[in-house]
Amino acid sequence: MDTTARPSPRDRLLDAAADLFYRQGVGTGIEALCKAAGVSKRSMYQLFASKDDLLAASLERRAPGYAAALLPPPGDPRPPRARLLAVFERLEELSAAPGYRGCPYLAAQVELKDPGHPASIVAGRVKQALTEHFRSEAEAGGATDPDLLARRLTLLFDGAAARSGVQAETLSGLAVPTAAALLDAAGVH
Amino acid sequence: MDTTARPSPRDRLLDAAADLFYRQGVGTGIEALCKAAGVSKRSMYQLFASKDDLLAASLERRAPGYAAALLPPPGDPRPPRARLLAVFERLEELSAAPGYRGCPYLAAQVELKDPGHPASIVAGRVKQALTEHFRSEAEAGGATDPDLLARRLTLLFDGAAARSGVQAETLSGLAVPTAAALLDAAGVH
Repeated sequence: MDTTARPSPRDRLLDAAADLFYRQGVGTGIEALCKAAGVSKRSMYQLFASKDDLLAASLERRAPGYAAALLPPPGDPRPPRARLLAVFERLEELSAAPGYRGCPYLAAQVELKDPGHPASIVAGRVKQALTEHFRSEAEAGGATDPDLLARRLTLLFDGAAARSGVQAETLSGLAVPTAAALLDAAGVH
Repeated sequence: MDTTARPSPRDRLLDAAADLFYRQGVGTGIEALCKAAGVSKRSMYQLFASKDDLLAASLERRAPGYAAALLPPPGDPRPPRARLLAVFERLEELSAAPGYRGCPYLAAQVELKDPGHPASIVAGRVKQALTEHFRSEAEAGGATDPDLLARRLTLLFDGAAARSGVQAETLSGLAVPTAAALLDAAGVH
């Protein structure tokens, strides 16, 4: 197998879409996407029915990497509280990178303003999985109301990601202690 | 004075811009804005140098109403904790309205992805005023670290507004108790 082979047009389009939509927003045009991917418009429309479908597919493809970057690995031996705080530690770290623009899923939802858009549906599913992860850890940690704690942590996560992404806030030393205060209030010690 | 007079072209443009940018995003075109305002493109460009300037001016104009809708009136006799929670009560109420799409200032910042854009600068100033309001109330309420509490409350506010605005969350019974948990942790009783 020749691992130096150039990625397929489909993969190049998905990579270009993930990059450009994240940096420039969902208004990025087909021309710019095809140019960045080195793929003709004709080829693009053979692979994706529309720009909306390309956006949805690029968000879907990015989901496993997003989860891997944020969540502790399966079998992490730390107690639930530490595992929950670790997500906010990762957020503090990731948000300090120069190209950070916030959570790509929340950004897509905010920009599209249409919960029925295929990309909004993908984004909603990915964020729901984050909330579900919080809920499951909150339950393992003995939270008084795991569902409520998970929703609170998701509000904090999205607010922190958004404010940092627009360079209105620096999360270092802020996101983790705020999450800790919510864990304390929920009895997760 | 004839109070039934039609608003000026400038006011009609600012109203149309506030409405369309909020509902459809900053990608809304000049044509649609002029059409909604009943103003020619030629007239628009006599009043505003660019769409960016119109967007910035529409956000600026909306700022006093935004503050009045969210913050307790000057001289509100309740103690600082109740006044702080009142902001989140208002957010819970406002977010339940059918046309709610989140905080217009955070949305503009997320969509523009450019902290140097004139509209991002206006938005950042309006959000900074909210944080400053939180800080001043936190100080009046005896918070251990008023600045930190204000930043935490702003993360919560923005996360709550964003998630509700994309219809991923219902804030009723969620935003206020979460804010209360942060106030408790900061010693504001």
